Amino acid sequence: MSTIPSFEIKYFHHGRFKVAGGVLPDAVTAYQTFGNPANPCIVFPTCYGAQLRLDSQLYLVGEDKALDPRKYFIVTFALFCNGESSSPSNTQPPYNGPYFPLVSYEDNIRAQYAVLQSLGVNKVYCAIGFSMGGQQPAQQMVNVEELDVKDDCNSWHHHSFLEGPKNAMKAAKDFDDGHYKSTPQHAIRAFGRAYSAWAMDRRYNGLYPTMEAWLREAWEGRYIMYWDANDMIALLLTWQNGDVSVVRDGGDFETCLRSIKAKALIMPCKTDLYFCPEDSEVEVSLLQDARLTVIDSVWGHVAGGSANPTDVQFITAKIKEFLN
Amino acid sequence: MSTIPSFEIKYFHHGRFKVAGGVLPDAVTAYQTFGNPANPCIVFPTCYGAQLRLDSQLYLVGEDKALDPRKYFIVTFALFCNGESSSPSNTQPPYNGPYFPLVSYEDNIRAQYAVLQSLGVNKVYCAIGFSMGGQQPAQQMVNVEELDVKDDCNSWHHHSFLEGPKNAMKAAKDFDDGHYKSTPQHAIRAFGRAYSAWAMDRRYNGLYPTMEAWLREAWEGRYIMYWDANDMIALLLTWQNGDVSVVRDGGDFETCLRSIKAKALIMPCKTDLYFCPEDSEVEVSLLQDARLTVIDSVWGHVAGGSANPTDVQFITAKIKEFLN
Repeated sequence: MSTIPSFEIKYFHHGRFKVAGGVLPDAVTAYQTFGNPANPCIVFPTCYGAQLRLDSQLYLVGEDKALDPRKYFIVTFALFCNGESSSPSNTQPPYNGPYFPLVSYEDNIRAQYAVLQSLGVNKVYCAIGFSMGGQQPAQQMVNVEELDVKDDCNSWHHHSFLEGPKNAMKAAKDFDDGHYKSTPQHAIRAFGRAYSAWAMDRRYNGLYPTMEAWLREAWEGRYIMYWDANDMIALLLTWQNGDVSVVRDGGDFETCLRSIKAKALIMPCKTDLYFCPEDSEVEVSLLQDARLTVIDSVWGHVAGGSANPTDVQFITAKIKEFLN
Repeated sequence: MSTIPSFEIKYFHHGRFKVAGGVLPDAVTAYQTFGNPANPCIVFPTCYGAQLRLDSQLYLVGEDKALDPRKYFIVTFALFCNGESSSPSNTQPPYNGPYFPLVSYEDNIRAQYAVLQSLGVNKVYCAIGFSMGGQQPAQQMVNVEELDVKDDCNSWHHHSFLEGPKNAMKAAKDFDDGHYKSTPQHAIRAFGRAYSAWAMDRRYNGLYPTMEAWLREAWEGRYIMYWDANDMIALLLTWQNGDVSVVRDGGDFETCLRSIKAKALIMPCKTDLYFCPEDSEVEVSLLQDARLTVIDSVWGHVAGGSANPTDVQFITAKIKEFLN
């Protein structure tokens, strides 16, 4: 995988920026733009572990893809803590590494709005995202009430399964409370193995000679080696602390969802182990104008990412239909 | 939870005993018996993490329970590596701790047959088990072809998700390659958190004030504190290396299942994250005389254990029906 992005990455400097857990003295948001700013704007933030430099968003952005830059002004955003926007790994002391403050989804969205305003965008036509990228549109619905979105909601289950990789990392012998001097191999590989089966596993059976080969090549080789340990923990904390209802309705999830007027398309995969379709059914029943489309795939969570062409084709068709 | 068992635990000494990864110079199998040896014999081995001293099998054994000691001669067995049968924690050098050899399901069953023969049992009427305890009956079907069983089969998915807790444990700063001198708290808690969401989590929402309280009390307090780190790794390796088809049909799972004549009742839970009902459907379609009954519960994997009275009542009724 090349680490030279196919499209320019731009950096917006916020200056001093308040976040949930404190402050960032010189916060930066990394982003890309596609198309003409006069067209309707579509926002497409990254998911957990994704980086713009690895062309993470391009499976949906392009002339024959779900998001067509001839029709829309598309802005991709790197989440705080993904290693491109302000993150433990690229922040100067005193907020470097393990001292990076907790960042919320709301903080990310506030930062993204600042970027959009600098680009002359006052209204977002649609916000779309996969996984953590889909939880930001959920937050946006609550904050601005005028978006069309693809969304996924957070839950106790997420908080619980994320405890696994987080604690594997933090307990590892070379993590050193985040003060590692070189890549903490034990930490990041234990983290990866406590994470991988949630994201994807069942369908690689047969594609690799052994499970070890699969873990080494498809998982450690393709993802883990690009990640910084402190970044991964910080980003995971954004996820674990995400709850749309806390922002507005004092933690009452049902009241919060019922109040949302934005049109929504929710697309979990039938075999997803984080966002189970049954949970999405509940969300859709609470939202005022939401549609549920289940991706009928054996690829689990990553079906909604870019794991295989068939699912991307399906998602693309459904998003186009939704946008028209 | 008391650690004094309600029923006597007996110990069978095998002497020198060959296992998959080498030999145990003085192998011991812990077991309990209920009822009259003249009655039909039902075998009920432990699951991962279960111990006879914690009354782990009693939710199904008793006069008004699934397995009635007035009608059957019930024998419960502690798996090797569970801390009661021969395990890293109770074995003398040179096979102590991290030097304990790999034990297979087949080894467990061979040991259990030796115990049964010493009890005068020549034929097993039914073998039943939950989780790892259910994988042994699967093995027995292959080995002896005359059992009625409740079964669950192994898979790539299991191997993959077990990599999480295993590597969390092994990478932890106090595991010390298995040479810890006191309970390695970091290791065992990281292991526990990389494991817990697979076994049970979604339905504790609301039963505890916070997720942290749930993890501390329902998981770490109820399970983790009773486990030895090396035992847990060794037992997990039995699980990861379990594949009924390897024993007889050179790894051809389909051929192996098709050849099994024993009557089987397979009962996964609808929301189980290890043994998904869709996988059980495949197994049942391959077995010659198997029945699938899905436990319609929100409790996930532990629905088949003793997690809640409603599911135990359901399982009890189905097992009674199957036995009659």
